[in-house]
Amino acid sequence: MKKITMALLFAGVLFSAKSFSQSTIDQANFHGAAADLKDYKAIYIINNADDKKIRGTLRNINNAMEDPRLKGKLQIELIAFGDGVEVYRKSAHYDTLLTNLQKKGVVLAQCENTVRERKIDKANLWSFISYVPTGNGEIIIRQYQGWAAVHP
Amino acid sequence: MKKITMALLFAGVLFSAKSFSQSTIDQANFHGAAADLKDYKAIYIINNADDKKIRGTLRNINNAMEDPRLKGKLQIELIAFGDGVEVYRKSAHYDTLLTNLQKKGVVLAQCENTVRERKIDKANLWSFISYVPTGNGEIIIRQYQGWAAVHP
Amino acid sequence: MKKITMALLFAGVLFSAKSFSQSTIDQANFHGAAADLKDYKAIYIINNADDKKIRGTLRNINNAMEDPRLKGKLQIELIAFGDGVEVYRKSAHYDTLLTNLQKKGVVLAQCENTVRERKIDKANLWSFISYVPTGNGEIIIRQYQGWAAVHP
Repeated sequence: MKKITMALLFAGVLFSAKSFSQSTIDQANFHGAAADLKDYKAIYIINNADDKKIRGTLRNINNAMEDPRLKGKLQIELIAFGDGVEVYRKSAHYDTLLTNLQKKGVVLAQCENTVRERKIDKANLWSFISYVPTGNGEIIIRQYQGWAAVHP
Repeated sequence: MKKITMALLFAGVLFSAKSFSQSTIDQANFHGAAADLKDYKAIYIINNADDKKIRGTLRNINNAMEDPRLKGKLQIELIAFGDGVEVYRKSAHYDTLLTNLQKKGVVLAQCENTVRERKIDKANLWSFISYVPTGNGEIIIRQYQGWAAVHP
Repeated sequence: MKKITMALLFAGVLFSAKSFSQSTIDQANFHGAAADLKDYKAIYIINNADDKKIRGTLRNINNAMEDPRLKGKLQIELIAFGDGVEVYRKSAHYDTLLTNLQKKGVVLAQCENTVRERKIDKANLWSFISYVPTGNGEIIIRQYQGWAAVHP
């Protein structure tokens, strides 16, 4: 009887040790998380009018799509709300960057609520974008649909 | 035999095409993600003392709750930590905005760790808020519970 | 027949009431979300060179690990990209803070893409860190693996 108890205890220790080693990352040999799935989706968030921040976010989207782990299997939606509406304003001239992303499959979405609250004439925003009821609602729903959320 | 193979191949092509079209969003006809679930929960994060940022975050919470896709089925918790404690400081006078959110079901939470580290007298914060061990722990646990996280 | 219908209706009302009370948090008795799982993982994001922001993020990691709800069961990875590379630059001297985190199991990761784009000599960054293809890819993949994402 004692032997069986000891054996079970020993097995338990082994099992714990295994669990522990599995959940620990070896810093010295770490080269990034593995992307084992076939499809990834991410919603990128911009709510800032700062030019550096806007260009950085658009570059970040490109970088994620070029990541060798995700290349060809990443769908991205860019959602702008609040001050972030600047990214779609014609006078701000991000159109080349935006259409280049769109050609790669990035969906460009603007918070309708921001446009209404700020009384922005949609004619001043690029016509090739889409409007969603609220940017905040979009961010929440996408996460519930399993999308990753990135707010650079 | 050949016929069956061809039929299977053809079915495979159809299936792939379907998968592809399902995972691609049609920009021209896109009006926002669909909220098919009955309940949504989101944790809103504030760690900034800037008045514009604080007011923006509180407005964002209202906008999410008023989103026609989420109206009546969104539970929100606001977690303040670090400089964000300002949102609950009596002298900052966000009380009307906060109690209006609370009446709509928003839970107001403050990082206990911030209060201790900064030696803040709780008497200087509104009495109608709750304290959680750490704001960072709260953000992590909520995501594991399936909540969306929004940091405007 | 009518009796059965009434009974079913009554049961339905009870069930709805129960669902409602379960999804509502009692502000007055709320002390934070419960951590019922055995393991938690979080990716912390830094893309800012500001000293206050960097120190704040490193302190936030410590706070999360010391949260009584998560203590001993939280694995953290810190990912730096864009301006956040500063956290690993030798001349910025965050080494004591970083190695203390590393001793507690925090994995330190730097976006390889940032290093390449900015032509940063890796000899100027601490040798005890790891490189991942892109910071943005890492953030997306980790969320798909179930990790919480925190960008203080």
